[in-house]
Amino acid sequence: MAVGIGIAGAGTVGGTLVRRLMADRAMVTARTGLDLEVRRVVVRDLTKERAFSLPPGMVTADVMDLVTDDSVDLVVEVMGGLEPAGTLVLAALQAGKPVVTANKELIAARAPQLVAAAAASRVPLLFEAAVGGGIPIIRPLAETLAGEQMSRVMGIVNGTTNFILSAMTEQGWSYRDALAEAQRLEYAEADPSADVSGADAVAKAAILAGLAFGVWVDPARVHREGIERISGEDLAAARRLGYVVKLLAVAERTPAGVVARVHPAMVPLDHPLAAIRGATNAVFLSGAAVGELLFAGPGAGGDPTATAVLGDVIDAARELLSGSQVAPRIAFGVGEVAAFDEVETRWCLRLEVEDSPGVLARIAAAFGDAGVSLRSVWQDGRGDRATLLLVTHRAPERAQRAALAGLVVLDVVVEVASTIRVEGDG
Amino acid sequence: MAVGIGIAGAGTVGGTLVRRLMADRAMVTARTGLDLEVRRVVVRDLTKERAFSLPPGMVTADVMDLVTDDSVDLVVEVMGGLEPAGTLVLAALQAGKPVVTANKELIAARAPQLVAAAAASRVPLLFEAAVGGGIPIIRPLAETLAGEQMSRVMGIVNGTTNFILSAMTEQGWSYRDALAEAQRLEYAEADPSADVSGADAVAKAAILAGLAFGVWVDPARVHREGIERISGEDLAAARRLGYVVKLLAVAERTPAGVVARVHPAMVPLDHPLAAIRGATNAVFLSGAAVGELLFAGPGAGGDPTATAVLGDVIDAARELLSGSQVAPRIAFGVGEVAAFDEVETRWCLRLEVEDSPGVLARIAAAFGDAGVSLRSVWQDGRGDRATLLLVTHRAPERAQRAALAGLVVLDVVVEVASTIRVEGDG
Repeated sequence: MAVGIGIAGAGTVGGTLVRRLMADRAMVTARTGLDLEVRRVVVRDLTKERAFSLPPGMVTADVMDLVTDDSVDLVVEVMGGLEPAGTLVLAALQAGKPVVTANKELIAARAPQLVAAAAASRVPLLFEAAVGGGIPIIRPLAETLAGEQMSRVMGIVNGTTNFILSAMTEQGWSYRDALAEAQRLEYAEADPSADVSGADAVAKAAILAGLAFGVWVDPARVHREGIERISGEDLAAARRLGYVVKLLAVAERTPAGVVARVHPAMVPLDHPLAAIRGATNAVFLSGAAVGELLFAGPGAGGDPTATAVLGDVIDAARELLSGSQVAPRIAFGVGEVAAFDEVETRWCLRLEVEDSPGVLARIAAAFGDAGVSLRSVWQDGRGDRATLLLVTHRAPERAQRAALAGLVVLDVVVEVASTIRVEGDG
Repeated sequence: MAVGIGIAGAGTVGGTLVRRLMADRAMVTARTGLDLEVRRVVVRDLTKERAFSLPPGMVTADVMDLVTDDSVDLVVEVMGGLEPAGTLVLAALQAGKPVVTANKELIAARAPQLVAAAAASRVPLLFEAAVGGGIPIIRPLAETLAGEQMSRVMGIVNGTTNFILSAMTEQGWSYRDALAEAQRLEYAEADPSADVSGADAVAKAAILAGLAFGVWVDPARVHREGIERISGEDLAAARRLGYVVKLLAVAERTPAGVVARVHPAMVPLDHPLAAIRGATNAVFLSGAAVGELLFAGPGAGGDPTATAVLGDVIDAARELLSGSQVAPRIAFGVGEVAAFDEVETRWCLRLEVEDSPGVLARIAAAFGDAGVSLRSVWQDGRGDRATLLLVTHRAPERAQRAALAGLVVLDVVVEVASTIRVEGDG
């Protein structure tokens, strides 16, 4: 018996998925015993030319056709954005149809509601493609590591920003030139703000936190800093100290609760994430028992993402055909989400200071007054000015900010040129 | 309703699992909604002292108690070896009990029979821990990538040999000293032959091939070479050419069929597998659509392996409680397994030759006669003798061996000191 698939979205991922579901139908049946048939495709513009041809009656512009059409057994949502995707996914789950989605924004924003709807209808809601594109990460976290006490998840989950930072580091390009090259290669969109501001990574950080710790973190509570202000000087400072700068999504369990954050970070050159270059994504997991795990691969692109969606479709179809009512794999328990101020981080500060006796003592005192201790100091004097690179020990964010507030008012500090957190280094 | 767990094996993994199932019971329930209760533990020696204490009636020396005891809903087999593990697993599946096993040897040897028994009873047979210890690799291959046309799987799947090769490469130790250190650290057993001969990796290669290509490969058909003859000269030669030597498990699809093999290989220094050091394991996957994926982490050890087993237990318990009869996730289709002779590989040969005019021409002719072309030649002369490092282009194994046969009979060739295949380099 064929399983009828309805697909909302016929862009890069949706178009690839439709093409592969049709071209590889026999291969999938041979491998899995499942016959998957595309029966309905929702497009935004009915008149647009597509790389795939479908019978005219199969294509629709109304997402709700996937819910009302009884020939659609399973709904795939790859259109992105909160609406109309959110209405479709909720209605499909409520109608008892399994849903596969690649929509990080939707899952991050409405996971509790959607997971509850899936549980109430006892149908799967799968979203492997929402984080890390083609890298299997959701399923390992939700299933293989379900019995693990995770302590930390750190990911390079945005290929555009990793491409830009890699090009700046390796080619010595400016941020502007690297962004232009990313746009030329279509890694970055004409309006790159969702990527470079860290907003895309925020949704993924929230999802990773929810899966790793079983506590849903509202994306609005994820601390966010982008890469727009990262300069060649920052990258040179990082290199001098044995680091490379990456935009990281970090989710961790602290005594005060779960915290998720996205910001540029200095990562030691010998850390596995330092080797993740270009548009590649990677997720690094630490758990009490399992130790450290690294998953790396293509984080975006139609083909890799379609592979992840297809894996979910096969899994959901398998459950559907079994007529089973399987308990949901993902559940959010009760747990605290801690404020970002509580998180302990290490900072690297780049300062321009007057090069006169007693300067370092006054600067060190500003840190000491805030309860932050310094781990290393690197000074490069040039006449009456000097550049200082300071790396602190771990301290709560609020203490780091207090130290910063104490620094900027010192008359010997000409400029705090940048502050970048240090991760993956004890 | 609690799910009754029966565990066969109370060694490193089994003991850790029992301890964690008891200590983390409330956490697992909070995270998954499942109440997992250890009800029966099979040990070899009833009198041995254990790190965990169980009521006397719970411990047994008879594996079949897990099948006949109605309070055991789900069987975990972590004793290893073909028997009595194989009898237990088959009987449990036939009795309709889900089985979770970490037993690579058993799965590699009897996968078709066991998968068929699981399918007939419509219960899960899960074995995430059989390859890569705590690294989630089975589930991503069997599920997330179920719709992908995989082309190649390359893994460092034996931590002992990777530790030995890393120590020889990085510390300059001899094979003998590195092995002794591995034994001191308990990475290697007193009889290290299963590891260093490649036999352990063979079982894992067969399992990876089966999952990646849906074709079961009998471990007896996996080509095997160990690391016992790798010398410091080999590692130095590799370094000179920009490679590092790793024991690889390779499974690939060739026009003639699926092939699996285990042997030392030279891997380019910039390949992700080259960075996998010490006892860490990693699997590198290539697929037509998904591109390249890397999974890395601890490949052995009680705690990481128990994490993978626990994830499977949670998954199987979830299906069990749903009362569902879910179609099996793993199925072996019909497909050819090709002979090793058919595989195309590249070889690196280290020769001691007479350093006289015309030697290189005669050596090159031996390759040409066998249909093998040379990609690079590196010569280091010392008086009347010279060391030659030759790297070939891709050619079928039988052609490479024919070339080797043509070489050894040349009077100018003093010795073929070693032949090591080159992987991951185009």
